[in-house]
Amino acid sequence: MKTILTGIKATGVPHWGNYFGAIRPALDMVSNLKHKDDRFYFFIADYHSLTSVRDPKVMEEYTYEVAAMWLACGLDPERVTIYRQSDIPEVMELFWMLTCHIPKGDLNRAHAYKAARDENEARGQEDLDHGVNAGLFLYPVLMAADIMLFDSDFVPVGKDQVQHIEMARSIAQRMNGLYKAPKGEKFVLKEPKELIQSEVATVIGLDGRKMSKSYQNSIPLFATENELKKLINRVTTDSLPPEVPKRPEDSFLFKFFELFGSEEEIANLRKRYEAGVGWGEVKQLLHAKANEHFSPMREIYFSLMNDRSKIDTILKEGARKASLDAKNVIRRVKQSVMGR
Amino acid sequence: MKTILTGIKATGVPHWGNYFGAIRPALDMVSNLKHKDDRFYFFIADYHSLTSVRDPKVMEEYTYEVAAMWLACGLDPERVTIYRQSDIPEVMELFWMLTCHIPKGDLNRAHAYKAARDENEARGQEDLDHGVNAGLFLYPVLMAADIMLFDSDFVPVGKDQVQHIEMARSIAQRMNGLYKAPKGEKFVLKEPKELIQSEVATVIGLDGRKMSKSYQNSIPLFATENELKKLINRVTTDSLPPEVPKRPEDSFLFKFFELFGSEEEIANLRKRYEAGVGWGEVKQLLHAKANEHFSPMREIYFSLMNDRSKIDTILKEGARKASLDAKNVIRRVKQSVMGR
Repeated sequence: MKTILTGIKATGVPHWGNYFGAIRPALDMVSNLKHKDDRFYFFIADYHSLTSVRDPKVMEEYTYEVAAMWLACGLDPERVTIYRQSDIPEVMELFWMLTCHIPKGDLNRAHAYKAARDENEARGQEDLDHGVNAGLFLYPVLMAADIMLFDSDFVPVGKDQVQHIEMARSIAQRMNGLYKAPKGEKFVLKEPKELIQSEVATVIGLDGRKMSKSYQNSIPLFATENELKKLINRVTTDSLPPEVPKRPEDSFLFKFFELFGSEEEIANLRKRYEAGVGWGEVKQLLHAKANEHFSPMREIYFSLMNDRSKIDTILKEGARKASLDAKNVIRRVKQSVMGR
Repeated sequence: MKTILTGIKATGVPHWGNYFGAIRPALDMVSNLKHKDDRFYFFIADYHSLTSVRDPKVMEEYTYEVAAMWLACGLDPERVTIYRQSDIPEVMELFWMLTCHIPKGDLNRAHAYKAARDENEARGQEDLDHGVNAGLFLYPVLMAADIMLFDSDFVPVGKDQVQHIEMARSIAQRMNGLYKAPKGEKFVLKEPKELIQSEVATVIGLDGRKMSKSYQNSIPLFATENELKKLINRVTTDSLPPEVPKRPEDSFLFKFFELFGSEEEIANLRKRYEAGVGWGEVKQLLHAKANEHFSPMREIYFSLMNDRSKIDTILKEGARKASLDAKNVIRRVKQSVMGR
């Protein structure tokens, strides 16, 4: 039996890049599981968001949006325990116990904190800690607590996040060396491993650069049929007339189509390109295909957001399950560290 | 109605200096209360101890010792809620919410952390954070959470602790400015005030210097009658013969006697000094007086330590009461900050 844990942070309205780059691969990982007793935890990292969000309405809204999004994309709450971080107070007890066992120097060298200092330096700020709250400084420890609260074996991460898993593992090793596990238990803390996600092809945006909110070239995941049409019309093309043969490799529209089409459909479109095709026609094909792909999810998403009681029920049940597991781990760690 | 909160940390075996300098004044404060609905919280700060203690047995032992000591000295668990910090997980939820609202720079300037850096510097350590764990760095925030988890009005502190109360108050002010209290509530966080303890006369040790474990001149609070006799025999005196008149002001034995004797007894002893008295006789008088004072407490202390179930019951009841109050405050703060 393996335990896999993933934290999900608010990204605002997710776009196709998030969907194909992160959401889809995570859901595929769940469905590709071999052992039926493997455990999956997905948590909405609202306590992490508190390092920057300063509006309780935004916080609440984002929790619903993230939950609705994952459920709409196919997350099965029967298979995966989905819960809100702040519903499991045990994470904070573990957090403190870990905090007392990590050298402050390790946190000085953590990526996110160093990035904030570098930014201050670049801006000519004399105080390099300017605008840094203690939550930002500590957040790698909270991540370690999130992970180890469920005896997680694996945490899927991008390469830039490996440092955090290493930090969690090193705290676990230190504490496993310092303390004795209670009778019948194999460890004080399970040492987690990173599961480096294989490079997913980068999704391009309307202008052919990487899709990114900051480039304003993104297509929102739950754009309506009409919005989708308008956005696809904005995809950059050349000005060759329809009858001229075209290279699929050079066409952003083709790259988008590849995200959705079956092998056969892609091969057919390739032939059309080589024979000469009008951009208007390709846009129509892409729109139909994308809409077919996303409209069922969009429907679920908006129905969940319009009646949030279903999300409430799912998160409540997730919290109930997660809480039972968390309490067992906290009992073990507290007994090892605090003596009872 | 006022709420007063005091955290008690392990001091190892307490001595007369701790008793007359801190324990007695705290208990007097409780008994001098005017309003019967004033609330008192005493907590055993085991989560604070985790910044340095690395042995679960020591941690457990110290919890029992501290609880037994306070109960033996007269703490009334009917009047004062006495609880173990680690029994109230809500303190850690509040701790994280505060952590996200305190500038890291404020912690860089906190006394205990600066003292650790200064020590490293004095030792020629290149890394000023050497040996500093993140728990030590963060502990003023945990103190703030301890305090505000019960809407404390006052925290009795020595002058060196005022900075911590100021820090707690400043976080409270910041968060009260950022967030709206839920309907019907007056604040998100109650802003606490320090209650600076009036200068208690310093208790001297066997050699006349301040009583301190590090000077090895201290008298343990629960020394047996025999141990007490041996220790009192070690009190430094001059070598004047009995019949020579003596100045009480210059006599350590007299200073010890003043801690226990009634006004009349002290006046009588003063006359004996002026008429000429033998040191052996004074030592006997002091021993009788001190033993009379401490033996009932000593008896309670050892009986509690021999059958710990009574302590367990008291701490369990304390945790139950404290938990109810903590849950109310956490509900209010979470609603204000996290939106639910």
